[in-house]
Amino acid sequence: MAEKPDIKFMFEPRSVAVIGASSKQEKIGYKVLRNIVGGGFQGRIYPINPGGGMILDKVAFKSVDEIDDEIDLGIVSIPAKYTFDAVKECADKGVKYLAIITSGFSEVGKIKEEQEIVDYCAERGTRVIGPNIIGVYTSAVSLNATFGPRDVNTGNVAIITQSGALGIAMMGKTKVMNIGLSALVSCGNKADVDEAEMLEYLIDDDSTRAIMMYIEGVKNGDRLVPVLKRATRKKPVVVIKSGSSKRGAVAAASHTGSLAGSDAVFSDIMAQCGVIRAESIDEALRWCKYLASSSEPCGKNAVIITNGGGMGVLATDACEKYNVQLYDDLDVLKKAFAMSVPEFGSTKNPVDITGQATLDDYENALEAAAARDDIHSIICLGCETATMDAERLLVSLDKFNRKHGKVKPAVFSFFGGAMIENAISNLMTRGVPIFYDVYEAVGALGVLYEFSRTLHREPDDDNVTAESLGVDVPAIEEIIKKVRADNRLFLLSYESAALMSAAGIRMPQNAIAHNSEEAVRAAEQIGYPVVMKVVSKDIIHKSDAGGVALDLLNTKEVEDAYDAIMYNCKKYKSDALIEGVEIAEQVKPGTETIIGARIDHSFGPTVMFGLGGIYVEVMKDVAFRAFPLGRKEALAMISEIKSYPLLLGVRGEKRKDINLLVDAILKVGAILYSIKDISDIEINPLIAYDEGDGAIALDARILLKPQQ
Amino acid sequence: MAEKPDIKFMFEPRSVAVIGASSKQEKIGYKVLRNIVGGGFQGRIYPINPGGGMILDKVAFKSVDEIDDEIDLGIVSIPAKYTFDAVKECADKGVKYLAIITSGFSEVGKIKEEQEIVDYCAERGTRVIGPNIIGVYTSAVSLNATFGPRDVNTGNVAIITQSGALGIAMMGKTKVMNIGLSALVSCGNKADVDEAEMLEYLIDDDSTRAIMMYIEGVKNGDRLVPVLKRATRKKPVVVIKSGSSKRGAVAAASHTGSLAGSDAVFSDIMAQCGVIRAESIDEALRWCKYLASSSEPCGKNAVIITNGGGMGVLATDACEKYNVQLYDDLDVLKKAFAMSVPEFGSTKNPVDITGQATLDDYENALEAAAARDDIHSIICLGCETATMDAERLLVSLDKFNRKHGKVKPAVFSFFGGAMIENAISNLMTRGVPIFYDVYEAVGALGVLYEFSRTLHREPDDDNVTAESLGVDVPAIEEIIKKVRADNRLFLLSYESAALMSAAGIRMPQNAIAHNSEEAVRAAEQIGYPVVMKVVSKDIIHKSDAGGVALDLLNTKEVEDAYDAIMYNCKKYKSDALIEGVEIAEQVKPGTETIIGARIDHSFGPTVMFGLGGIYVEVMKDVAFRAFPLGRKEALAMISEIKSYPLLLGVRGEKRKDINLLVDAILKVGAILYSIKDISDIEINPLIAYDEGDGAIALDARILLKPQQ
Repeated sequence: MAEKPDIKFMFEPRSVAVIGASSKQEKIGYKVLRNIVGGGFQGRIYPINPGGGMILDKVAFKSVDEIDDEIDLGIVSIPAKYTFDAVKECADKGVKYLAIITSGFSEVGKIKEEQEIVDYCAERGTRVIGPNIIGVYTSAVSLNATFGPRDVNTGNVAIITQSGALGIAMMGKTKVMNIGLSALVSCGNKADVDEAEMLEYLIDDDSTRAIMMYIEGVKNGDRLVPVLKRATRKKPVVVIKSGSSKRGAVAAASHTGSLAGSDAVFSDIMAQCGVIRAESIDEALRWCKYLASSSEPCGKNAVIITNGGGMGVLATDACEKYNVQLYDDLDVLKKAFAMSVPEFGSTKNPVDITGQATLDDYENALEAAAARDDIHSIICLGCETATMDAERLLVSLDKFNRKHGKVKPAVFSFFGGAMIENAISNLMTRGVPIFYDVYEAVGALGVLYEFSRTLHREPDDDNVTAESLGVDVPAIEEIIKKVRADNRLFLLSYESAALMSAAGIRMPQNAIAHNSEEAVRAAEQIGYPVVMKVVSKDIIHKSDAGGVALDLLNTKEVEDAYDAIMYNCKKYKSDALIEGVEIAEQVKPGTETIIGARIDHSFGPTVMFGLGGIYVEVMKDVAFRAFPLGRKEALAMISEIKSYPLLLGVRGEKRKDINLLVDAILKVGAILYSIKDISDIEINPLIAYDEGDGAIALDARILLKPQQ
Repeated sequence: MAEKPDIKFMFEPRSVAVIGASSKQEKIGYKVLRNIVGGGFQGRIYPINPGGGMILDKVAFKSVDEIDDEIDLGIVSIPAKYTFDAVKECADKGVKYLAIITSGFSEVGKIKEEQEIVDYCAERGTRVIGPNIIGVYTSAVSLNATFGPRDVNTGNVAIITQSGALGIAMMGKTKVMNIGLSALVSCGNKADVDEAEMLEYLIDDDSTRAIMMYIEGVKNGDRLVPVLKRATRKKPVVVIKSGSSKRGAVAAASHTGSLAGSDAVFSDIMAQCGVIRAESIDEALRWCKYLASSSEPCGKNAVIITNGGGMGVLATDACEKYNVQLYDDLDVLKKAFAMSVPEFGSTKNPVDITGQATLDDYENALEAAAARDDIHSIICLGCETATMDAERLLVSLDKFNRKHGKVKPAVFSFFGGAMIENAISNLMTRGVPIFYDVYEAVGALGVLYEFSRTLHREPDDDNVTAESLGVDVPAIEEIIKKVRADNRLFLLSYESAALMSAAGIRMPQNAIAHNSEEAVRAAEQIGYPVVMKVVSKDIIHKSDAGGVALDLLNTKEVEDAYDAIMYNCKKYKSDALIEGVEIAEQVKPGTETIIGARIDHSFGPTVMFGLGGIYVEVMKDVAFRAFPLGRKEALAMISEIKSYPLLLGVRGEKRKDINLLVDAILKVGAILYSIKDISDIEINPLIAYDEGDGAIALDARILLKPQQ
């Protein structure tokens, strides 16, 4: 394998070859070249066509061989059956990145053909983007190497899309929405370069201020997650995930062959990564536009300025939905807005400047809000009234945005007839963050705050390892080795118990006694109270046979119970072979939880947590995280389930040992992470006791990966 | 009190007087008259101004007295301090409806002034609309008696709004959105005429096909609910409720003085009424536009036709969100679409006609869907591609909509650049149901289906009365009488038990014994097992004193327990006065539920149901309904809680006695409904047993209303 070229050659190529360049206008090879030339690409352009000649005033080469230059990016747009040959030439030539627009590979089942291409390239140090993509648009070198629209707005939003068709349409849509792009790339079949690598470049790209990703299915979540985590520490990432519904997942699978995975897992892991999740493309684009152009608010105090009580109330509802905090200091609000609020108005938040308000009143109120350091963001609303001059509205808001937009985040929404609508669309093209609907306006501010909270999240040390948690890894490896030798994929109950013990997760102690003395000795060792149960394959219904005794408190009771069990069982079935009597710790009741770790096919090692039994089964009240994670995130995971108050103690109960639950989550995750043989660990139930009293696992189910 | 005039005189007045008509253009009295005259009102117009003269070419009268005509509708727009005098003249004259635009009454605390007006009018048979409204727009007689925009689109959507400012703005917005109005009225302070009465008119108004209501707070839910129920059996009603958040509710209260009430209660009761709830005004208007113009689908089978897999997947997700059923018969789909789907496309649903699709392909696929009786609705989507001619798109979709729109519901969404956007906005003005976003398109179809389901809901007999449920009403009235005589607002435990008994809701039986023989007699009567507890004010910690015995199975054990309790208690506290020993039925464990009934201040008598303890307290898993309701709705209420599977039986448990829970809900509701003294009944817990085994109430808390 040759060394991999830097990802910057994809986004900042100095030279581009178009393999399949054509002078026939209906061909993709024509459109791509037209866009490269027309888009004013700053580097060198090489059309490749076996016929040679001139295409779009450029000399066409018959093959990449003929070019006496280093090629950073090759765009391949020739029929699938010729693609491999063209790829070979490019790889032999040492082209750094090959963007293969051509479709008809793994997405239609031709997996081998795709792999051939990737393998050939990998050996020669050529990276493959796609196949089945729309090309590459990147503003860094003014390169529009796509077959989409020629005319793209340059700006600060980068888009990575899994769907090519949507990518092309987004090029047009962003233009209409006056959104400027720093890059738009599709990753198609992700045969080689995936969205994680593209994202990696965008993290450090100064011209990118917000990143939007359209995802249908995650293949390589374990690579994507750490990159997303790093990305959201620098700039906002907005994700739309299609295939979030059950049926949508099936449709997505048949569309791109990508498995959509569980939406609950995806959703929790995106939140873990600090990613903002949008539902629709419209919403995602709106948010990215706002996020790319707004500065971070200096604090959480938002004020609503409105000329209509109704809109103020709707905005207040929206603030709760989008987690925007309304400023509440009535004295300050009164001081700030007394001059701009007429009689019957209100200086409370929402600040109601009333339907009589003129644009002077609006300007005064807005300036008053901008002037105060303890007001950090503004939601400015209006219903069309007779006193509202739409012309002046346009001028006022534009002026305010120019003056304060860079330091004091604001969103606007006005509601009314044609004049208002025209003013809004005009203001939108001027970059004023104005929205048709109150919920859209508050939603945009809400995601700005969400991003701000992500930026200031306290770092979490996710460098936990099984060893650092005190797990005896060699002991576990020893257990696994025996299970493998036995050709099993599941652990037997005593093996699981041994694994739990190596992990330092307590399970009830037990022992088998063959006579009364042994029973007493075992009980003394385990500690009272104990339970006893006959061990016999011949006695199925142990209780019916009188073969069970609970709540035994001392030597005497254990002795009596031993005798009684033997007597009862022999009477119940005289020919039964009795192997002994099991003596076990009697488990105290507590709060049942479930902790699991598994290899998710999208995200790799993941952990899950929920309260036991009905809460998980009926209420679906569980949380997921990708591993690795630190203590803070494990605690966040526990606290986000709805039944969390049960762990804090309700109805006079004490707080449970949450710290120990955090430990257990980290341990099962770390074991899965470091011992590659294991595919599933489920502790169900793990009974949690009051704080300091720990927890006890009643059952642990552990599965191994099938051997390669 | 005089007889009330028919509501039709508000919506179809033959004559209108404008009290406060003015020739000064900045005055509301000018704008209203200008709009009435300019709007082409079909009846007689009388400007009233103390100065007389001519206003807008009409003779102005100095007072309504001077008019020699019956006045159906008077519009009052004069300062608040003169309003009562003007109202008096109008009422004396016999004006049927008075729409008082003037504000400054109860909304600013002037409750008495408002009541005076209403009382004076009521005596003379004049109805008051408002005060604090925007006037009345009604297309039936081409009347625009508002101070909003002059130019309003006539059509089939009626709007009732609590906010005047939003009402005015909606007049402009509907014009922009190409929505036609049959009526737009604001109800303001609702001093007399309320939204229920306005709704009543709209139910039978043939020109109204969809109704939108903007509500900040419900005052008279017990009147509104039955009208809503009737309305949604004929036409869709879309409600936006502002103040749905906690803080929004406070803002709403300070804005209109209306209490927003609990959003959970509002939400459940709207669903009970078959009302469609929108979040934002934009959404509500979009939905109403679609609902007013679409026919009902003949069945549930929807198909998605798309040229891009990504959009198809997004639409599939949206279908799950909005409960739209995608057609699944692969053979039929193949038959229907084989001719319009190229290679690499898919005839599965979403039907993917691929990015190569031309408009011919779209037309073919759409016609194929329209031609089949087993395809009932169409979601048609597209990403802009090189093969898509936006001009022709416009013509094709318009033609399809004209041809099939009235019989086969369809929604469209296309995504792309300026040409697509122009085509969309052009199609919108032509009445084609096209949307900027896939989720908006599917959402509209979703509410059409929701309305269709409401139309076909099986009627539920909500004529249940306490008597018909076997409740002994006279016995309960007797109990209440005694509580009233005792000047209490709460029932003592034995009174609650007696009330439960009169309601036929079982509680544990009990009796007090003063000697061993009495204890045995009581136990025999109650039935074993029983529990026993010392009755003594001097012994607080009865268990510590040895004053409690559980699980007593026969005469002997009861006798022994009696002796033991007496002995223990005397030993524990020798001077304790022991009144006796309580013998009670030992309650078997079961599933804890909570059933309640209370007078909600918005909706009057309401019932609630949830699973006991943690489910209600921590998970907030409860359902509400307005009373009256029938068995079907009570069952729907039980089945909509998330923990419902627990009642159906999980983990090998049997189905619980749901029928008896339905009974209990109807009973507590009916008692509250028919016995006006009671304000609250809460049974907590009501332990439900397996089907056929009934349920038992362990505690019932009953409160009375304060006496007037």
